[in-house]
Amino acid sequence: MNLHLNSAFLENAVAELSKLPGIGEKTALRLALHLLRQDEEVARALGEAIIKMRSEVRYCSKCHNISESEVCDICSDSRRDSSIICVVESVRDVLTIEATHEFHGLYHVLGGVISPLDGIGPSDLEIDSLVDRVAQNEVSEIILALNPTMQGDTTNYYIFRKLAPFDVNVSILARGLSIGNELEYTDEITLGRSINNRIPFSDTFANKD
Amino acid sequence: MNLHLNSAFLENAVAELSKLPGIGEKTALRLALHLLRQDEEVARALGEAIIKMRSEVRYCSKCHNISESEVCDICSDSRRDSSIICVVESVRDVLTIEATHEFHGLYHVLGGVISPLDGIGPSDLEIDSLVDRVAQNEVSEIILALNPTMQGDTTNYYIFRKLAPFDVNVSILARGLSIGNELEYTDEITLGRSINNRIPFSDTFANKD
Repeated sequence: MNLHLNSAFLENAVAELSKLPGIGEKTALRLALHLLRQDEEVARALGEAIIKMRSEVRYCSKCHNISESEVCDICSDSRRDSSIICVVESVRDVLTIEATHEFHGLYHVLGGVISPLDGIGPSDLEIDSLVDRVAQNEVSEIILALNPTMQGDTTNYYIFRKLAPFDVNVSILARGLSIGNELEYTDEITLGRSINNRIPFSDTFANKD
Repeated sequence: MNLHLNSAFLENAVAELSKLPGIGEKTALRLALHLLRQDEEVARALGEAIIKMRSEVRYCSKCHNISESEVCDICSDSRRDSSIICVVESVRDVLTIEATHEFHGLYHVLGGVISPLDGIGPSDLEIDSLVDRVAQNEVSEIILALNPTMQGDTTNYYIFRKLAPFDVNVSILARGLSIGNELEYTDEITLGRSINNRIPFSDTFANKD
């Protein structure tokens, strides 16, 4: 689609908005026309918030999560257990896990997973810095919390091998049936693995403590 | 959802993005994190394009379409037929009709339709300025191209009455079956009206000229 919008400024805004993921030219035009109908302050607040965010937000030098300072709020929180590090793909996964309120250790954001087809190798990820953290700090456990995909599994194994020389437990998130789901609608691979990796019923009491 | 994003700047950007229509907090976060991964130039270009668009884009003093000057490109195009004015609800409708390449007259953007439930009366719309255009210029035909809704029909009738004193033909866009659609899936009101307002078959040859 090649829009003639009667205004180069509008065309430019639509072009920039449609560069965003999931926003096509039609949606971009709808957003731009919406902003045109608002007070000038609304467009200014949005534009400045975007620019400011990109220029001010930094990444924690320890865990590579989003931060406004050298070390992020989670890493510098003395109440958290610094001996457990949860390894995740992205900043969003940190938010997702924090929302469960079940984890009180620190994080390590890899910035992706090993994916040769996409040209992403171990050196493109924050794996060396994870190994450094384990080498230089007292870390008792690494929880691998990558997405349960082939690339995630490959990355898990790579990290597991890299951490082999160190005295650290490496665990992985439990995989199995989703709570509340029905057997009938569970995919075959998940169900098959749930059968193979079945757990003693008595363990489910222990989990309830 | 109340996000704790480790950064007030990120939270602010997400808050501003989620004010846009159709963009919830989760999508806003996805967009913000995407921008964080891009070069600083990308975020700056987007932010500035939005601010610039809102401050620079004006509306044509004649047809109220988007314009960068006092009178828009369409109104000032001497190749267009200034004796025919197509009345539309919004700026977007101008783009939609222009995309058909079937109309070579001028436009008049009402800025909405009469809708008492939403508190929009005739005085909130550019109806008086339409009447002025008809009174002060040589206009032979007004094409009402509002959406085929109850509010659109109400507005059509209001405009029709307002234009009664003038020597101008008032026409309305044809309504009936969508080209390529099947009878079975046409809604009953459209199909019923298509039967009542059937046209001589020989007219369809004439349209093909």
